[in-house]
Amino acid sequence: MNHLIYGIHPVEEALKSNLPIQKLFVGSEKPSRSLQDLLNQARKKEIPVIFTTRDFLDQVTRGGIHQNIAAALETYHYVELEEILSRWRREGSKALILILDGIQDPQNLGSLIRTALGCGAHGVVIPKDRAVGITPAVFKASAGAAAHISIARVVNVPRSIDRLKEEGIWVYGATGEADELIYHLDLNIDLAIVIGAEGRGIRPLVKRKCNRLFSIPMKGPVSSFNASVAAGMVLYEVMRQRTLWNKNHKDSIGGGEKG
Amino acid sequence: MNHLIYGIHPVEEALKSNLPIQKLFVGSEKPSRSLQDLLNQARKKEIPVIFTTRDFLDQVTRGGIHQNIAAALETYHYVELEEILSRWRREGSKALILILDGIQDPQNLGSLIRTALGCGAHGVVIPKDRAVGITPAVFKASAGAAAHISIARVVNVPRSIDRLKEEGIWVYGATGEADELIYHLDLNIDLAIVIGAEGRGIRPLVKRKCNRLFSIPMKGPVSSFNASVAAGMVLYEVMRQRTLWNKNHKDSIGGGEKG
Repeated sequence: MNHLIYGIHPVEEALKSNLPIQKLFVGSEKPSRSLQDLLNQARKKEIPVIFTTRDFLDQVTRGGIHQNIAAALETYHYVELEEILSRWRREGSKALILILDGIQDPQNLGSLIRTALGCGAHGVVIPKDRAVGITPAVFKASAGAAAHISIARVVNVPRSIDRLKEEGIWVYGATGEADELIYHLDLNIDLAIVIGAEGRGIRPLVKRKCNRLFSIPMKGPVSSFNASVAAGMVLYEVMRQRTLWNKNHKDSIGGGEKG
Repeated sequence: MNHLIYGIHPVEEALKSNLPIQKLFVGSEKPSRSLQDLLNQARKKEIPVIFTTRDFLDQVTRGGIHQNIAAALETYHYVELEEILSRWRREGSKALILILDGIQDPQNLGSLIRTALGCGAHGVVIPKDRAVGITPAVFKASAGAAAHISIARVVNVPRSIDRLKEEGIWVYGATGEADELIYHLDLNIDLAIVIGAEGRGIRPLVKRKCNRLFSIPMKGPVSSFNASVAAGMVLYEVMRQRTLWNKNHKDSIGGGEKG
């Protein structure tokens, strides 16, 4: 069977999105009201609904919390890096691309995708090897965000970085050992942010390709932040700088920040 | 058996900390070098080491990735809220306390604790009911940070908020529906930040106790950030404001921020 998404909220998100759903499986003969809502949506989209048993869903979801509903998907539709670049050009806003150099934990990847979408990134780049792809667990952890953002799965991250640089996009890598603090960076430029794998960080080859390396200050005996928290901090800072810049630019007031 | 911590890094963190370890279990007769290092540390601390089997560790960790090492702990030592307040007074820095109103996911709680420590919080407050406590899974997800930060588990969150307010600490709650954006807050004050549960957010009774509610701007079809990512963004902003304030204060230069 192809990728499965299960649980009411994730299936709802999948339906809302343009995710290619092959069919829905329902594990109850008497669907609850929220399930019935989903089935009505599916019928409008002409998605076949198959009534099966709770046991069947227990099996195919390997004991997951499926709430009597599962959606079988075509394989996740990755995009080409060029599609992310086109989207950026079309939108006309400053580029914001998240490059994830080898995230292995589905929870983390899902959370990173959700954060990237919420911070207005144009797309996410992940490597094909030694990293988790967009599995149903990742989709679920992304709270459906994986359906709404362009994700490119590339063979060679350094080569993708070169391609971004050709387009005038700056590539900044977050790494604990960098002396430069994020506070001092101007992030209101066309930008790709590289976040390394849990524990290992950014690979040396990828690090060398970055225009700049920076760190997030940390206190106490913690050696690093969780990868998705670190990315959240960086993308927050990008949003903050761009919002204030736009505001100040509009108001024609320099340095209009409080506190 | 009491709480178990397993895996080389978490046990190492537990050893480094003042966590009360009863005994260590080793699942191999020929410990690797990194395991041997741990055993030497344990001997220095006069912690009993018990040689057992990999099977035994598989069982007691319920199939967890134990890397042949586990530490049995006394029950996690929570502190009283007053202890967090004393620590703040002792340190003399602006208060920073994280109040977690009902986090249920161990991964999230662990990540939140790790972030709180890394951002220099004086302590974390969690409710006794309908929330996960400091279990071994949480300890592990915190990358050992739970051993280094004071965590108070309180019966009544609103009453704890009243206590903080008595001490002149401002209590700000993060909630999607608030009109006030985090960008416009002065966070360089004695502060407690309230983060709500996954999905549900902050409970109404707790919300009403907050001095102020604020939101983090969000783009696209995402309805919320992951709780630990949202907290990361807020605590990052607190750190950023305090660092720049201290710097500017020292340099006697106003608005010395770049970009």
